[in-house]
Amino acid sequence: MKAIVKQTPARGAVLMDVPAPQITRGDDVLIRPILTSICGTDYHVYAWDPWSAGRVIPPRVMGHEYVGEVIEVGPDVRSLRPGDRVSGESHRVCGVCLQCRTCEGHVCAETRIFGVDIDGCFADTVCVPESSLWRNPPDLPAEIACIQDPLGNAVHAVMAGDIAGKTVAVLGCGPIGLMAIAVARACGATHVVASDTRRYRLDLATRLGADRVIDAGECDTEQAVLDAFPRGADVVLEMSGAPPAIKAAFRVARRGGRVSLMGIPTRTVELDVAEDMVMKGLDIRCIVGRRLYSTWATMSALLESGRLDLAPVITHRFRFEEFERGMELMGQGLCGKVILEMD
Amino acid sequence: MKAIVKQTPARGAVLMDVPAPQITRGDDVLIRPILTSICGTDYHVYAWDPWSAGRVIPPRVMGHEYVGEVIEVGPDVRSLRPGDRVSGESHRVCGVCLQCRTCEGHVCAETRIFGVDIDGCFADTVCVPESSLWRNPPDLPAEIACIQDPLGNAVHAVMAGDIAGKTVAVLGCGPIGLMAIAVARACGATHVVASDTRRYRLDLATRLGADRVIDAGECDTEQAVLDAFPRGADVVLEMSGAPPAIKAAFRVARRGGRVSLMGIPTRTVELDVAEDMVMKGLDIRCIVGRRLYSTWATMSALLESGRLDLAPVITHRFRFEEFERGMELMGQGLCGKVILEMD
Amino acid sequence: MKAIVKQTPARGAVLMDVPAPQITRGDDVLIRPILTSICGTDYHVYAWDPWSAGRVIPPRVMGHEYVGEVIEVGPDVRSLRPGDRVSGESHRVCGVCLQCRTCEGHVCAETRIFGVDIDGCFADTVCVPESSLWRNPPDLPAEIACIQDPLGNAVHAVMAGDIAGKTVAVLGCGPIGLMAIAVARACGATHVVASDTRRYRLDLATRLGADRVIDAGECDTEQAVLDAFPRGADVVLEMSGAPPAIKAAFRVARRGGRVSLMGIPTRTVELDVAEDMVMKGLDIRCIVGRRLYSTWATMSALLESGRLDLAPVITHRFRFEEFERGMELMGQGLCGKVILEMD
Amino acid sequence: MKAIVKQTPARGAVLMDVPAPQITRGDDVLIRPILTSICGTDYHVYAWDPWSAGRVIPPRVMGHEYVGEVIEVGPDVRSLRPGDRVSGESHRVCGVCLQCRTCEGHVCAETRIFGVDIDGCFADTVCVPESSLWRNPPDLPAEIACIQDPLGNAVHAVMAGDIAGKTVAVLGCGPIGLMAIAVARACGATHVVASDTRRYRLDLATRLGADRVIDAGECDTEQAVLDAFPRGADVVLEMSGAPPAIKAAFRVARRGGRVSLMGIPTRTVELDVAEDMVMKGLDIRCIVGRRLYSTWATMSALLESGRLDLAPVITHRFRFEEFERGMELMGQGLCGKVILEMD
Repeated sequence: MKAIVKQTPARGAVLMDVPAPQITRGDDVLIRPILTSICGTDYHVYAWDPWSAGRVIPPRVMGHEYVGEVIEVGPDVRSLRPGDRVSGESHRVCGVCLQCRTCEGHVCAETRIFGVDIDGCFADTVCVPESSLWRNPPDLPAEIACIQDPLGNAVHAVMAGDIAGKTVAVLGCGPIGLMAIAVARACGATHVVASDTRRYRLDLATRLGADRVIDAGECDTEQAVLDAFPRGADVVLEMSGAPPAIKAAFRVARRGGRVSLMGIPTRTVELDVAEDMVMKGLDIRCIVGRRLYSTWATMSALLESGRLDLAPVITHRFRFEEFERGMELMGQGLCGKVILEMD
Repeated sequence: MKAIVKQTPARGAVLMDVPAPQITRGDDVLIRPILTSICGTDYHVYAWDPWSAGRVIPPRVMGHEYVGEVIEVGPDVRSLRPGDRVSGESHRVCGVCLQCRTCEGHVCAETRIFGVDIDGCFADTVCVPESSLWRNPPDLPAEIACIQDPLGNAVHAVMAGDIAGKTVAVLGCGPIGLMAIAVARACGATHVVASDTRRYRLDLATRLGADRVIDAGECDTEQAVLDAFPRGADVVLEMSGAPPAIKAAFRVARRGGRVSLMGIPTRTVELDVAEDMVMKGLDIRCIVGRRLYSTWATMSALLESGRLDLAPVITHRFRFEEFERGMELMGQGLCGKVILEMD
Repeated sequence: MKAIVKQTPARGAVLMDVPAPQITRGDDVLIRPILTSICGTDYHVYAWDPWSAGRVIPPRVMGHEYVGEVIEVGPDVRSLRPGDRVSGESHRVCGVCLQCRTCEGHVCAETRIFGVDIDGCFADTVCVPESSLWRNPPDLPAEIACIQDPLGNAVHAVMAGDIAGKTVAVLGCGPIGLMAIAVARACGATHVVASDTRRYRLDLATRLGADRVIDAGECDTEQAVLDAFPRGADVVLEMSGAPPAIKAAFRVARRGGRVSLMGIPTRTVELDVAEDMVMKGLDIRCIVGRRLYSTWATMSALLESGRLDLAPVITHRFRFEEFERGMELMGQGLCGKVILEMD
Repeated sequence: MKAIVKQTPARGAVLMDVPAPQITRGDDVLIRPILTSICGTDYHVYAWDPWSAGRVIPPRVMGHEYVGEVIEVGPDVRSLRPGDRVSGESHRVCGVCLQCRTCEGHVCAETRIFGVDIDGCFADTVCVPESSLWRNPPDLPAEIACIQDPLGNAVHAVMAGDIAGKTVAVLGCGPIGLMAIAVARACGATHVVASDTRRYRLDLATRLGADRVIDAGECDTEQAVLDAFPRGADVVLEMSGAPPAIKAAFRVARRGGRVSLMGIPTRTVELDVAEDMVMKGLDIRCIVGRRLYSTWATMSALLESGRLDLAPVITHRFRFEEFERGMELMGQGLCGKVILEMD
């Protein structure tokens, strides 16, 4: 089958023929992806940044965001059958550790990520266990169904505490930050301000429902958030991973407020733990992945109801073989979500 | 001053002159009501039902829903000054008991209700402690500011558990049930069905955002909710107090769902505790009043942001002296919220 | 193999030879029970009460509480191997429904109960899926390991809300009520009162840590609880299922308190929903089974630490073939937990 | 009256005569302290460290921990009368801001601390508003009643998340850390390890219930905690404020665990936000003061029940005029709690 493969330990990837996966366990499911989309993680692997170089072992089929059709199921599969439309969860968790058995599978220590630690979905066929799949409502548009894995991060970050009736600052308007704006609005956030250094993404932020946007390259983010919310924001969603934004996240939260930390910095961050954290009595929720599967259930319900309009976040759509155009756009930040059409 | 007074232990009330209240404690605040509105409780007192006859001691100035202007403050008042626009909380709690000191003032055993246990707001002047008041954002329309006390019940009922991404059944479309529909929608509920026996109120339910309405006089409410939500509703808000609706509330909730009980039945209710409650693993939240003042804070934020449109719930507006027309409409159920304009 | 079988639709059960189960699915585990114990449910099936007659289809191997040794595992089993000491969860849930995927497997609509809906553990060999097993710490006494399934109900009931620093009333001192006393004490409950109609069980209640016991046959339970806690109990655990106790549960809870309902009445209950529930602002948690598997994790940690002493609850120990003596004691209420020693 | 006064902006304090306070507001209460105790904050003010020099304006009566007897009440006081035994809350909050009105008074931006921002309790007479007082059960020993303000920090830190059935690491065994050990044990923590650099305090930790102690000056704290809990601690209480301990707190927490940050570092801390926080999905609760007054209610209930034995934490008792001996011991860390007997 055709697949996008990280072939060598260097920048780039190739579209090539590889053997198709087969069902080997009772709970395996074989899927034909219809659409896939590119995650920032995929770009890191493509660009071969230090994190990727330390973790990915080529050759590796890339990708973990997809919507597809079930084409075959193992004998122990009970909830799916050929023809079902499913989306994939990128974290393949062990299912049997303490965390997996106590509703904290999203922090399973044995997690393997599709397209990073094991072969992924940028391919004609994917084989995953039933427990890594979510069946979609029949009329959910494929484009939206495809991006649920990253949407799950946004929902997890937004809903890690109360959101209705709250003011919200979203720091970082990559695709997940953008989706978080829409989710917060749909769930009753009263005012949302969003910051980024790229005007392109701030325009998307506005289209996704931000009441005010802050160009972090042009002005002082901290002051700008406090101009919007003089007492500080009730909820701060740190989605950028940029050390200055992480510091600002604690400073712009109101006393007793909540900070969801999702962005992953590439270096250590020096923090004023006394003044900016302890003395303010903050609640800080570290967000990794999505809750398996309560986040999916909430997200699916919001999407199915039509309350959540994510159309503006999908800015580009390429054919599978054009994946490199998508990767380059990701590197430049000149896109929201980039969809790849499988053949 | 002029006031609407329950003068004798019988149906009715009179508009008459009574002495105006004075500031006597350091934290007292004198207010001139601008608008008031009629609560179901006011109608019960007016109609002199058994509950009122057992609790209210005439003469009593009626009413507890109002928006007004501060005209004078006692020497210990710190957060208000003349000219501020305020709304009133109907529960005057003791402030010093265990519940009041531990964020559960809404169940203070010493609660006295304005217009029921102590003189109320259907008058030219009201005197209440600073702690019974909420200062409104300057541009909140007076009509909306006036109805925040009952809106608080709706917000309390809706937010007594998760609501975003949930399906909701609202049983009973009196003014608080109607407002609960709008609140649930604003906070991310995915589908809302609402039932009542009066077509007039079902029409209002639709205008406030119900996706489907059920005429409980025409069809089987339980079956109709299950038609909408075959697994049962994630959240059921029992706002009617009617014993059949209370039974139905437990039956239409999904396994593991939540039931907020707010309606107050006038007789005992026979329940299948085993099948309809215990075996389903329900969470049941009994809703009385509003949380003091976290519910007010949430409500105020939602209103100020414009995310919550309550205009349809206000169906009638009378001059103060026409209060009897409002009372009669309340008795017939042919109204949403009825506003009285103070002179 | 030998097994205790409900052979005919009438009172009684027989110890007889039946075919031993075999591994048929990839995740099946074969276990040799070491000890089993008798649940109230087992007695109901033995006595053939109306509930059993409506649900159990003979012949059926009885029993669901056990500790045993793994003797063989299917090819997909990852967390267990022969020689492991395991205890069993009685609820075999589907694993794929909304509830099972969102941390609410304890209310899975497809639940089948071992020894009721499918063959149980009163047998030389048991075959269950890996997901129905909990591996025990190596030095946990077998007697204690055996009774974790019902202990889980107690932990679930106690921990369905805050317990540290709370006063507690336990209504009903069957084995689960008795264990709830010990759990509440271990988790910081300040005072525990316990009621039952049988002096034998009240003596056990005292040994398990109740500060005061109430003989419900001799005095007015409601008044006796209020004598102990004049403002009402912070937490009420209704473990009896007796309609008068269910009514009392709501009446003896303090305003804003919590009631966990676990006992299952055999008829409808007439409740003063207005005065005893809504107006008090109660939180009511309906307790069915145990959370899968967060309750098990908590319970296992408490047991392993030695903080929880359950020895007094185990009052009788019989050889397997003496099971009828245990059943009779259960019927009379003259026991705590009854253990059966497998051969 | 006699009082311990920070008289000049330099190390030290003097016992001197100052005018006694008087009731000036309707809700004022005059108290005669019976015992007081020395907080670390008092020592900082005494030693005149940079924080004190930047905040305290001499002359200032020091101290904020006390138990005393009410000797006079203002006309609006409703819950106290002369002769009542009360303890004091050190945070005098405004009572009217958003935080104060929504159960978050512990982070009121207008907080003034007794003995720091306003005159304190190391004096013959104290005048505070009714809302700053907690009435004690009559038979609570005065020594224990006296130290409830710092005990409240410990209770707040421990109970900022689930504790029953959890493993706990307490980093820092000053008086509040020591009390946190006892509180965690009383509330169902299964194993508690505690670290400090002073052997004296580790001995106290053992007496208060630590299962294992770690001499942070002798070994690698992080490794030692992981030796005790190979998967990491479920709950980490950072009570030291030492930057290395703050870093270790995040590293020794298990994936998905909780970290309560209470210690206040005097400089910025460089953290590996990616690996040690975000990727682990931690919940981080910043602990300042105590919840007003739900923490007091819980603490009072635990003390009154006798479930919580704090006797070992009180290591020294001096006469009022010997306060300097207490201050010196605090500086050396050679004490638990130091009590001062008022005349």
